[in-house]
Amino acid sequence: MAANGNGSLTNGAVCTLAKPIKCKAAVAWGPGEPLVMEEVEVAPPGRLEVRVKVLFTSICHTDLSFLKGENELQRKFPRILGHEAAGVVESVGEGVEDLAAGDHVVPIFNGECGACVYCKSGKTNLCGTYRVNAFKSTMALDDGTRFSVVDGSGVRCPVYHFLNTSTFVEYTVLDAACAVKINPEAPLEQMCLLSCGISTGVGAAWNTADVSAGSTVAVFGLGAVGLAVSEGARLRGAARIIGVDINPEKFTKGNDMGVTDFINSKTCEKPVHEVVREMTDGGVDYSFECTGINDVLREAFLSTHDGWGLTVVLGVHATPKMMPLHPMELFDGRRITGCVFGDVKGKSQLPGIVDKCINGELKLNFDGFITHKMPFSDINEAIQLLEDAKSLRCVLHL
Amino acid sequence: MAANGNGSLTNGAVCTLAKPIKCKAAVAWGPGEPLVMEEVEVAPPGRLEVRVKVLFTSICHTDLSFLKGENELQRKFPRILGHEAAGVVESVGEGVEDLAAGDHVVPIFNGECGACVYCKSGKTNLCGTYRVNAFKSTMALDDGTRFSVVDGSGVRCPVYHFLNTSTFVEYTVLDAACAVKINPEAPLEQMCLLSCGISTGVGAAWNTADVSAGSTVAVFGLGAVGLAVSEGARLRGAARIIGVDINPEKFTKGNDMGVTDFINSKTCEKPVHEVVREMTDGGVDYSFECTGINDVLREAFLSTHDGWGLTVVLGVHATPKMMPLHPMELFDGRRITGCVFGDVKGKSQLPGIVDKCINGELKLNFDGFITHKMPFSDINEAIQLLEDAKSLRCVLHL
Ligand SMILES: [Zn+2]
Ligand SMILES: [Zn+2]
Ligand SMILES: [Zn+2]
Ligand SMILES: [Zn+2]
Repeated sequence: MAANGNGSLTNGAVCTLAKPIKCKAAVAWGPGEPLVMEEVEVAPPGRLEVRVKVLFTSICHTDLSFLKGENELQRKFPRILGHEAAGVVESVGEGVEDLAAGDHVVPIFNGECGACVYCKSGKTNLCGTYRVNAFKSTMALDDGTRFSVVDGSGVRCPVYHFLNTSTFVEYTVLDAACAVKINPEAPLEQMCLLSCGISTGVGAAWNTADVSAGSTVAVFGLGAVGLAVSEGARLRGAARIIGVDINPEKFTKGNDMGVTDFINSKTCEKPVHEVVREMTDGGVDYSFECTGINDVLREAFLSTHDGWGLTVVLGVHATPKMMPLHPMELFDGRRITGCVFGDVKGKSQLPGIVDKCINGELKLNFDGFITHKMPFSDINEAIQLLEDAKSLRCVLHL
Repeated sequence: MAANGNGSLTNGAVCTLAKPIKCKAAVAWGPGEPLVMEEVEVAPPGRLEVRVKVLFTSICHTDLSFLKGENELQRKFPRILGHEAAGVVESVGEGVEDLAAGDHVVPIFNGECGACVYCKSGKTNLCGTYRVNAFKSTMALDDGTRFSVVDGSGVRCPVYHFLNTSTFVEYTVLDAACAVKINPEAPLEQMCLLSCGISTGVGAAWNTADVSAGSTVAVFGLGAVGLAVSEGARLRGAARIIGVDINPEKFTKGNDMGVTDFINSKTCEKPVHEVVREMTDGGVDYSFECTGINDVLREAFLSTHDGWGLTVVLGVHATPKMMPLHPMELFDGRRITGCVFGDVKGKSQLPGIVDKCINGELKLNFDGFITHKMPFSDINEAIQLLEDAKSLRCVLHL
C-alpha cells in the first residue's frame, strides 16, 4: 500500500502517509433515527482505492429513503450515508494511476473502471464492478469496510458504506473508479451537485432521451432531479417544458430552469395525461418520471405522444408494485426506459462537462439548485428541509 | 364514385364497373364457431377505397384469437376475418391515385396514408387514420361495412370488417392506404406472407431491434413470426440464435431459419433466462417475445444482457395482466419495446423488399414458411392445423 502524499495538500490537509484518520461523521444508527455526529476511524485506502477529504456534501432523496430503511433489504446500520459531494484526494492506495493526493474530485455512485465488458461496450454507463448497487454496503474489492466507530457499549464496530460513496464524513474511502478528477479551477461547492442530481437530470435529457430542439417535454416531480431534467431540456432548445407537481411553489423555481407550463396534479379535474395531451396536440415527445410513485409512472407514460413518445424513469420505486402498464400498451409506440446517473459515464465524461462549465460553453444554473448552505454539524436540519420539500439542495460545508 | 376498370383485368376478373359483387366468404358467426361459407354481397369501393380480388390468403394466430372472441370487446359478428393475403385490384373508388384495376397488391392491416403527422414524422409506422386497430370493425372513412349477408331468418345484415383487411372472401374492400402495389412479377402465393407474419418478424429484427452482425438473439415462440424473426436475424449475421419453445419439433424447422440452439422451456430445470444467460455469458443482445404469454415476457426480458439488452414484444397479450416487470428492473439497462408490423412502413417499404426478393438480393425463405396449401373451401381444416401447431402457414387458394 503506497500513499501518494507529498506532504502538502491543498485546502490545508496534512498528508497522513496512509495511517488511519480519526474524524467526524454523521452516522446513521437505525431506520428513521436522526444522524449522530461521531468520531470515526477511517482506514487508509486499499488497493485501487483513494481516501478523499470531503469538503462539500449535499443530501438527495435517495439518502432519505435509505435512512428511513424503506426497503428492508437495504437496512444496514451503523452506516455513513451521503453520495453527492466534492473534495480533495488525501492519499491513494496501491495501483491507483489516474489520481494523486491533492486532486480535486467528485465521487460517483455509479463507477467506471474503464476495462470491463460493460465499460468497453460503449452501450451503457453501468460498470461490471463498480456500478450502482443499492444492496452493497462494503467496498467492492474485499467486501470490507473502511470506517469504524465505538458503539454505546464501548466496542469498536464497523460502519457500513453506502452507494460506493459515503460522503457524510470528513474523510471517506472511495474506489478509484468512483472518484472523478476534475479541473481544479472549478468551484467545488457547485461541482458537488454533479455527483448526483444535476448529472442525473441533465444527462437524462441529453443522453437517455436525447431531447431535440423544438420538442415538447413533461417532467413529473420538480425536485432537484426534475428541475435538472428541465434545465437539460432547456439547454437543448425544447419548445415546451411542462412541469407536474403537487406543490405550486415549485413552478416559480421551475421557471428559472426552463419550465414553461405547470400542472398541479392535486387540483387537476381529469387525469394529468389527458391534460398534457390536450396541451400538446396528442402528447409530449418525452416525459420524465422523477417521483418514484407508481401511479405517476403510468401518467408519465400516457402523457407522451403515441408512435414515438419516450418515458424516462428516474424515480426510485421502492414498492414491490409491478409496472402499471399492459404489454399491449407498448404497441401504441410509446417507449419507456430507465436511466442511471443520466447515462453519463462518470470518469470519461464528467471532466469534459466541468471544463465546459468553466469556459462558459455550458451555462448550467448551479446556483438555482443550491437553495441552502449550512455547516456539516447541522445535517439533521438540512435533512428536514429536504423532507419538507423546502430545499432543492442544501450544501453542507465540512 | 368512379370505377377504374378497363374491361379486362388480369387473372380473368371481369370489370364490374363498380357494381356490387356477389361472391363466397368464410363468415364467422359467433365466438368459437367454425367459419361458414356464405354468399356475401361486396359493395363497390367508396372514396379512397379499392376492391380487391383475393387470390391467396393464409391464417395467423390473430385470426384465431378473434375467432375465439378471447377479448370480449373485440367480439363482432358476423365478421369476415383474415389479414394475410395477396390479390389483384378489381376496381378503385373516387380519389384513388396510386392504384388501378389490375395492380397486384398485398393488403396491410397497418395502413399508411403518407400525409398525416405520424406518417410524415419518420418516427413510426403507425398512421393516424389507418393504423392497426383491434377494436375497429368498419371502414375508416364512413364507419360503414362493405359486406352483407342474408342471415338465418332471411334478413340481409351487415358483415363486419377486421383489422383493415378481411381477406377470407373472394373480393374484399380495402382503404387504398391499406393496399400495397407490388411488382407484378412477384409470385403472389409467397407475397401473401408479407402481409403479416414475415414482415412482422423480419422487420422486428431489422427495424425494431436493428440486429447487428455477430450479436446474440433469443426467440421465444417458434411459430411463423418467431421463425421470421430468426430468419431476419440470420440474414443480419447474428452469431447465435437461441429458439425457445415447448415443442421440440420446432427446432428442426427452426434450423432452416437460422436457429442455432434450442431450449425446451417445458423440460428446463431452472428458469429459461438463467439458461440463456449461462449460454451467452450474461445474456443475449436481443430477445423477442412471440407467444403472448405474460410469464414468457418476463423470461424474455431477463434473458437479455444487462446494460444494453433489448426485448421486442410481438406476441398479443390478451389477458388483463400488467407487465410482469418492476420499474427498478429498468435500471439494469434492459430495454423493452413493442413492435407493430415489424416497424415496416407498408406502402413506402414493402415494394422495395419485394423487388429485392425478385432480383435475389434478399433471400427470404418463403417456402420454409408455407407448410400447407389448400383450397379456400377447406379453411376450417387449415384453422385446425394452426391451432394444433401442425402448420406454420397454410396458404388458401381462392
Ligand atoms: Zn442522489
Ligand atoms: Zn467497468
Ligand atoms: Zn397476423
Ligand atoms: Zn398516415
